Amino acid sequence: MGIAYFTCSICGSTYSSQEVQYTCPRDGANIDVHCDFETAESKPSMESILLSSEQSIWRFAPLLPVPDPGYARTPLHQVGMTPVYQPETLREQLGLQQLWIKDESRNPSASFKDRASAVVVAHALQTQQEVIIAASTGNAGAAMACMAASVGMRAIILAPRTAPPAKVAQLLVFGAQVILVDGNYDQAFDLSIAASQTFGWYNRNTGYNPFTAEGKKTAAFEIWEQVLRKLDPSAPPLTIYIPVGDGNIISGVYKGFQDLRSLGWIERLPRLIGVQAEGSAAIANAFLANKDTVEPVHAVTIADSINVDLPRDGFRALRAVRETHGTYIKVSDEEILQSIPTLGKVGIFVEPAAAAAFAGLVKALETCQQDPGAPVLVLCTGSGLKDINAAIRSVPAAPVIEPTIQALKKVIYG
Amino acid sequence: MGIAYFTCSICGSTYSSQEVQYTCPRDGANIDVHCDFETAESKPSMESILLSSEQSIWRFAPLLPVPDPGYARTPLHQVGMTPVYQPETLREQLGLQQLWIKDESRNPSASFKDRASAVVVAHALQTQQEVIIAASTGNAGAAMACMAASVGMRAIILAPRTAPPAKVAQLLVFGAQVILVDGNYDQAFDLSIAASQTFGWYNRNTGYNPFTAEGKKTAAFEIWEQVLRKLDPSAPPLTIYIPVGDGNIISGVYKGFQDLRSLGWIERLPRLIGVQAEGSAAIANAFLANKDTVEPVHAVTIADSINVDLPRDGFRALRAVRETHGTYIKVSDEEILQSIPTLGKVGIFVEPAAAAAFAGLVKALETCQQDPGAPVLVLCTGSGLKDINAAIRSVPAAPVIEPTIQALKKVIYG
Repeated sequence: MGIAYFTCSICGSTYSSQEVQYTCPRDGANIDVHCDFETAESKPSMESILLSSEQSIWRFAPLLPVPDPGYARTPLHQVGMTPVYQPETLREQLGLQQLWIKDESRNPSASFKDRASAVVVAHALQTQQEVIIAASTGNAGAAMACMAASVGMRAIILAPRTAPPAKVAQLLVFGAQVILVDGNYDQAFDLSIAASQTFGWYNRNTGYNPFTAEGKKTAAFEIWEQVLRKLDPSAPPLTIYIPVGDGNIISGVYKGFQDLRSLGWIERLPRLIGVQAEGSAAIANAFLANKDTVEPVHAVTIADSINVDLPRDGFRALRAVRETHGTYIKVSDEEILQSIPTLGKVGIFVEPAAAAAFAGLVKALETCQQDPGAPVLVLCTGSGLKDINAAIRSVPAAPVIEPTIQALKKVIYG
Repeated sequence: MGIAYFTCSICGSTYSSQEVQYTCPRDGANIDVHCDFETAESKPSMESILLSSEQSIWRFAPLLPVPDPGYARTPLHQVGMTPVYQPETLREQLGLQQLWIKDESRNPSASFKDRASAVVVAHALQTQQEVIIAASTGNAGAAMACMAASVGMRAIILAPRTAPPAKVAQLLVFGAQVILVDGNYDQAFDLSIAASQTFGWYNRNTGYNPFTAEGKKTAAFEIWEQVLRKLDPSAPPLTIYIPVGDGNIISGVYKGFQDLRSLGWIERLPRLIGVQAEGSAAIANAFLANKDTVEPVHAVTIADSINVDLPRDGFRALRAVRETHGTYIKVSDEEILQSIPTLGKVGIFVEPAAAAAFAGLVKALETCQQDPGAPVLVLCTGSGLKDINAAIRSVPAAPVIEPTIQALKKVIYG
């Protein structure tokens, strides 16, 4: 599948893929990629996708702006096609008709971000880049390091000096060259862009590189294949809860459903609900105030994957929710922490950002913003192993006993 | 598939599945489960397995002693069919003809142990158990908690008081009732057995419950499907590197290949190499001294998943290696740590026990114990996210720079 053209998400200017590499030259806004679905030669066949034996995002290669990069026996080819669970007890507790949890911890680097990095690395291979750079302390950096390692591409990651050593270690293990910048995330972000301009390194930054959303849209394709196309078309629309930090995930998922609609494979878009932590709610604030511009906040939340002062993809994140008749919901850190063992009890161990999406569903039901008769899917974006300190805070401590049957009997049966 | 009979792994006594629940009544040794492959009615069909659309261990249900438990949309049905990678650069560096890495971190609780726990929980469902108990601080406990949560079964886990809070938290998040015992692992193990006898709780302990090895044998079935049956039968045998702690993984993998041979689906067994940490080498010591009895050690290694004083399945672990013309290899903690970034550089993030298996391959090549012309597979048993402190120790610290292009240029280009 080729790229037909690019458009600016704000001013609407149209560009060829040769004219623009990252953001709009006019206003600096994020670029939407438009695939060439039209010509008879490249028109994707729904049947051949559904019958494909490929169990990764690359089954959807005909819907992507980059070709399948090969490297079939590497982690790059093991991204996506994550499971959807239907936890019956949880569905009953919530009083829902239908509930799915999509478990993105099952990706190679244990988060949703592998989708974006896989497609960006595929694009880097296609355009013969030698070095890929990003500013990230978290899941995006780990995903980029993992995907670059899969194909032997050199990766450079800039992180603030204050990045937790545990997160930095994962990047280093994947062989990325990690450089700690004596400054904050925004300074690392700006330096990475300057470095791309100066040294010609390919830049993967979220909310800057147009191909991250193209990777993230694969989650929409899977939700369509696994859930949406099996639903009763006369039922209320599928509602999807998505954790929102910089806004790129919800923008990517929206783009995927748009693609499916422009192909005529779906008639209506699912309803997208963006969930933000109360302490990091820049996009939700704009939505609830009915504004188009997102004002930065001083973000503080336990959910570090969605802890964002200045969302880099806020405009499109607002559009995704408005155009699907969704809404934004804010949840407290306490509600986020409570959701970790709630999901754990059905066998799903999530990081706080993923728990936030579920907490958003709970809150939507409590505040009558969710029809319990509508089918619901929660996108759980990362593994609880990514933030074990939050897990420790989410559960009471275990009791200690003497190693005797009497002591055990007392603690179990009282 | 039903159970034909049980045999004691040491004295060879034969029992019906009604006569014995855990170990041999005569000598307390581990029990081998023999499936009923013989009757025309239950004879498994290779073709129907290979054509199955089921992408989990349950595709091999005809080869298991328990039926597929259902719960299709839960983590219980997402265990296994983990990817095998073929990292080209690593293969070249090692001078091997063929190299596969099987990545068990892609299981629901991010380790190989989900295989055992899935089959044990399926057996618990089949025999209508209400409570399942185990002594574990690590991957086995997490796997049992995750699988029990999948089906809403009550799980009780006994752990030594000294268990790291990060490991305990994962069990608690999965809703297991965790009880810390003021004693060591052996005391927790013994108390769990006494509790099973007193309260009737079903016991999952490794090296005690005969169904853990039946779960672990599914890795052999996958290696057969993914690798073995595609190899040139006239080539040297496939050699498999397996980390060994209590000995139950290598025993289970061996059992799987035995099953395949008794079905006539393979002619010769792969060569199994057990890799132990130098500081926890009870089974390797017995093998290298050509003894049948395994003497306990005071185990100290960074690879905590294979840090075992008294291996509970040592006899069968010796048998697995002897009968496949394999060997045992000991690796130092330093060699284990070095292997973490070596695997990371091809996109695979492993915990120390898994790195040990790879370190064993490196050492085998150095010491001429591995024919470079033979096909080799390394079983990487768990995710690096399980032990982030070891990851931190395995890589040098990242440099810190001022947020300027000049500083970045200097650190990259010197």
